[in-house]
Amino acid sequence: MIAVSVKTRERKEMIDVTAELARAVSEAGMKKGLVLAYVPHTTAGVTINENADPAVPRDILTALSKLVPERGDYRHGEGNSDAHIQAGLVGSSASVIVDQGRLALGTWQSVFFCEFDGPRTRKLLIKLMPG
Amino acid sequence: MIAVSVKTRERKEMIDVTAELARAVSEAGMKKGLVLAYVPHTTAGVTINENADPAVPRDILTALSKLVPERGDYRHGEGNSDAHIQAGLVGSSASVIVDQGRLALGTWQSVFFCEFDGPRTRKLLIKLMPG
Amino acid sequence: MIAVSVKTRERKEMIDVTAELARAVSEAGMKKGLVLAYVPHTTAGVTINENADPAVPRDILTALSKLVPERGDYRHGEGNSDAHIQAGLVGSSASVIVDQGRLALGTWQSVFFCEFDGPRTRKLLIKLMPG
Repeated sequence: MIAVSVKTRERKEMIDVTAELARAVSEAGMKKGLVLAYVPHTTAGVTINENADPAVPRDILTALSKLVPERGDYRHGEGNSDAHIQAGLVGSSASVIVDQGRLALGTWQSVFFCEFDGPRTRKLLIKLMPG
Repeated sequence: MIAVSVKTRERKEMIDVTAELARAVSEAGMKKGLVLAYVPHTTAGVTINENADPAVPRDILTALSKLVPERGDYRHGEGNSDAHIQAGLVGSSASVIVDQGRLALGTWQSVFFCEFDGPRTRKLLIKLMPG
Repeated sequence: MIAVSVKTRERKEMIDVTAELARAVSEAGMKKGLVLAYVPHTTAGVTINENADPAVPRDILTALSKLVPERGDYRHGEGNSDAHIQAGLVGSSASVIVDQGRLALGTWQSVFFCEFDGPRTRKLLIKLMPG
């Protein structure tokens, strides 16, 4: 298990961590298997989507904030219920296949750390499963 | 594969199953790898979020019911389309890393069985993948 | 890693790919482990739900289109932001446990390729992880 530090700068932000995953795979010399990107936080998540056009992560964050607004019928006292719920919609991990020593991502796919209650210094856990 | 029985008491309910996962890992003596919590149902799911404040799962369930109300433009005849859709948003499984013989969860993370069409007696499947 | 071609015929469509996963497991003779169904696209996803009543996938797609309409406050220039966001909500992969040489799906569970910006010819990647 590898722990990577991720510094976020906005309350809502998607940060491309594909290079961190690729580096973990290549440094381990893993040829085949799975890599899991896992967020050990309850107000952040991991997702896979397009980063070629930065409008895509922007549209995703805007849509999530429209679906789950910052203010609402919430009881959690810390004022970040929207972040917990958005993390639940996106999920706390993503799996990527490793083949021939490389991430088997589609042409347009990037792996994103999703910050929903930043800015903070966060952790991303990367787990390699050869096989 | 281990099958655990989960008894739900409400139509919508999140039940903390972290202890069941931890027990499966410790009884198997697994030191490193992944554990998958999987729900073999189509109106239930698995998610990871905070349980220190019970208002967090309450807020998640309330938000899901607001996004996908019980009554709507549904065709499925059993009257539980909201539960199928909510299960789709949350997902049918969650992966947790195992490191040094323990679940590598964040401080505030718990693993939840999500009931969306209870009360029922449900099953949770736990799969250990050493590696 | 196995790559399967999936032809979609609608803009929004859920296609049952359970048989493709079962075939991959049986042709490999895998008795125990995990199988990951992974979509290398950013406007498609994978989910597990009921297919016994075709109204269930119809209700899921209708609900996703209501939550994330085709037209909205989007900046991505290709006019398919709804598809990117829906893919984010559903997720790009699903894990299924393999036990005694078979997919350990629940009675009502099918694995679906989710098209959100079709019709197109797509790819589904299937990764077997014995263990």
